[in-house]
Amino acid sequence: MSLDAVLARIDSDMPQAMDRLMELLRIPSISTDPAYAKPCQEAADWLVADLQSLGARAEKRLTSGHPMVVGHIDGPEGKDTPHLLFYGHYDVQPVDPLDLWHTDPFQPELQDTPKGQVIRGRGSSDDKGQLMTFVEACRAYKAVTGTLPCRITFFFEGEEESGSPSLVPFMEENAAELKADLALICDTSMVAPGVPSIASQLRGMVKEEFTIHGPRIDLHSGHYGGPALNPLREISRLIASFHDDTGRVAVEGFYEGVHEVPDDLLRQWENSGFDEDEYLTSVGFTEPHGEDGYSTLVQQWARPTLEVNGLWGGYQGVGTKTVIPAEAHCKVTCRLVGDMDPDALRRKLRKHVEDRLTPDARVEWNDDLDGSPAAVMNIARPEFEAARQALSDEWNREAVFVGMGGSIPIAGFFKEILGLDSMLIGFANEDDAIHSPNEKYNVESFQKGVRSWARVLDELTG
Amino acid sequence: MSLDAVLARIDSDMPQAMDRLMELLRIPSISTDPAYAKPCQEAADWLVADLQSLGARAEKRLTSGHPMVVGHIDGPEGKDTPHLLFYGHYDVQPVDPLDLWHTDPFQPELQDTPKGQVIRGRGSSDDKGQLMTFVEACRAYKAVTGTLPCRITFFFEGEEESGSPSLVPFMEENAAELKADLALICDTSMVAPGVPSIASQLRGMVKEEFTIHGPRIDLHSGHYGGPALNPLREISRLIASFHDDTGRVAVEGFYEGVHEVPDDLLRQWENSGFDEDEYLTSVGFTEPHGEDGYSTLVQQWARPTLEVNGLWGGYQGVGTKTVIPAEAHCKVTCRLVGDMDPDALRRKLRKHVEDRLTPDARVEWNDDLDGSPAAVMNIARPEFEAARQALSDEWNREAVFVGMGGSIPIAGFFKEILGLDSMLIGFANEDDAIHSPNEKYNVESFQKGVRSWARVLDELTG
Repeated sequence: MSLDAVLARIDSDMPQAMDRLMELLRIPSISTDPAYAKPCQEAADWLVADLQSLGARAEKRLTSGHPMVVGHIDGPEGKDTPHLLFYGHYDVQPVDPLDLWHTDPFQPELQDTPKGQVIRGRGSSDDKGQLMTFVEACRAYKAVTGTLPCRITFFFEGEEESGSPSLVPFMEENAAELKADLALICDTSMVAPGVPSIASQLRGMVKEEFTIHGPRIDLHSGHYGGPALNPLREISRLIASFHDDTGRVAVEGFYEGVHEVPDDLLRQWENSGFDEDEYLTSVGFTEPHGEDGYSTLVQQWARPTLEVNGLWGGYQGVGTKTVIPAEAHCKVTCRLVGDMDPDALRRKLRKHVEDRLTPDARVEWNDDLDGSPAAVMNIARPEFEAARQALSDEWNREAVFVGMGGSIPIAGFFKEILGLDSMLIGFANEDDAIHSPNEKYNVESFQKGVRSWARVLDELTG
Repeated sequence: MSLDAVLARIDSDMPQAMDRLMELLRIPSISTDPAYAKPCQEAADWLVADLQSLGARAEKRLTSGHPMVVGHIDGPEGKDTPHLLFYGHYDVQPVDPLDLWHTDPFQPELQDTPKGQVIRGRGSSDDKGQLMTFVEACRAYKAVTGTLPCRITFFFEGEEESGSPSLVPFMEENAAELKADLALICDTSMVAPGVPSIASQLRGMVKEEFTIHGPRIDLHSGHYGGPALNPLREISRLIASFHDDTGRVAVEGFYEGVHEVPDDLLRQWENSGFDEDEYLTSVGFTEPHGEDGYSTLVQQWARPTLEVNGLWGGYQGVGTKTVIPAEAHCKVTCRLVGDMDPDALRRKLRKHVEDRLTPDARVEWNDDLDGSPAAVMNIARPEFEAARQALSDEWNREAVFVGMGGSIPIAGFFKEILGLDSMLIGFANEDDAIHSPNEKYNVESFQKGVRSWARVLDELTG
């Protein structure tokens, strides 16, 4: 049976696979910051060349933002196999605050840690390392059998960390080319170390950013302190008004479309191996800080949130500046669950702020930010049970269907634009510090991830 | 009478006086930022040379921070005249946000405006322009009469905008040298355009800065949003708790030592020419935003405040970063009146925050920041009435005793360390945008300011 040969090939080729990943990690493809547009192009070029080395018809496809990479490989001739679409993203998060990194974020290193060997560097886990697990599985398959087990379309984007502005137009324009039988996505984590996980529901997201304008100019806090409206106080008051004392979001109508988790699913989650204590203590918490009455796991997977991701105004330098600034700024994201409507939620949030503004204060919204609903996977499809079996075999632990606190809007778009169900399998760990300084990816995640995909491909096409 | 000759000399020498001021304004002596230590030295050197050109025995005196400038000139021989100490500061505020300046802050320009000619540039009003009004008055006096009308000690510091850390030790070490009969200070503004003003009370100040620590590292708002304690929400909640709905500070015991303004003083203030409407509308306000039940002027001069001057944490760049940051930061200043005790106030403020912290949150205080009590002047001294007469003569408008919202701790230190009363006379205007982009000083303030000092010197020594 050829699967064993493919798995053996993956193991023997691991040093080279690691070298290839390191090359990709050295490209600082930060998509949110326009200063890194060129590295984003370089990362796309690198992937095109790598797919071509597998025999794919791969191209860099320009957009008004960062380019897409699309590649096609046919399956074995004369065999009835499915057409799979694989999605990943080559862009990475910004690296600030840089002074908290112990290594250069873009000079990846193999490091020994008490929990095993890790690949340290920005994008190692989110998502370059994960993306390459699938590519390396294909490479091994091709090397051993001379072909892939089925027709595969590779679809990589470079704007996932910046709201994917080009994604929907590109998918709409190229729908015929991208249509397949099932989408595979590798951008998620395992519910606990060593527990293979298939995401069955993901939270959606609404992004907001607003500025509070107060006085016409920066004021001296001696000459104006007292009579002046201070935008820093105003924005703090508004942010404080977003939640009540029980941790519940106080925006009117915020919970419309939220459903309680059914008891049977709740039981599955409780038995998934999620370690609440480790999850909390590893980041310095002694208790969960979300809504009263919900477990940590439900707070994370099945409850909506409103979080402030950035807040600034006034003087931030050394020493004191006795200023009442003209402006204060705030970045917010909401996580959505169930049937929450992103557009309606945005309207409710804006109304909440506008209803509470002090006279003489003015709010300015950033209208360039997007939103996406929550996604629930179609786990009744037979491919999900097949993949669960393949993952269980590789990890010697029953694979589980889990919720995810993060937002991967692509699954919604695949359904909406291409009519395509998605299956999300990922090998990241909660302690990977994605979006944080010192991001890492376990070497075990990488190697067993590649082997997992080989098994999944085998099960889906067997 | 020689005063007329001195005034004529001031007028004829005005172009040269302006050139000298421009030279001083070109030196970017920002004291709060260690990167500008060298320009602070340069400004001190410039002043030493300028005082020497008047015949003063002037020196730059090194401290552990920015240097002091001390200069002495004797009065006319054989005449019983007072010994005056004149204080000003050569350091200036930072210039950020730089993009709001219409000119280079350190390339001062003479500009025509609808309200008359102005000198535009950082420090033009606070305090280089004001400081030079006194120096130029001395220069004219010397040029016309060959001497100064009395013994004068010049005392300039370079740390006024950064809390004057070297001031008290320097004054204590050099008390004998600095002792005089009266201190003159030029660092205040006029209550209304064209209304000469002598400050009879100043607010004190307590500076604070704190950091709220939440999670051990920056977290992903998908993976942790919900269960995570968000320091940006925590700091907003704390800031919002500083005030109640009536604008009153809600810190327990905050108002201890605050006295209501006596009715007779209130009436004087109401007739001082202060234009509440202009004061508010010029910066974009339709109403005062301080404590309910107090007039704009009382809020500014006679009520204590707690203001946030800087607030920051999380992602501030372009686009979205779905982060829950590990830290949030905040800079605060309180303005003190009456008998409020700076040290006690600091303890109350810290207790307020610490009592309200969410479990798992930690507050870290900056212990390097200082405080100073409010100051009330001894206007019963005959010099105050003499100066009021001199100012009334120059401005053709009765000079008034006014309160000041700002804090000039030096007056308290002169009293405490040297046993010296202070008289504060300044020619700045409320619209000078001190501490803000596009700071200016009216040419009228400069010219009539120089002339005012000549008249005051004449009255005090006549």
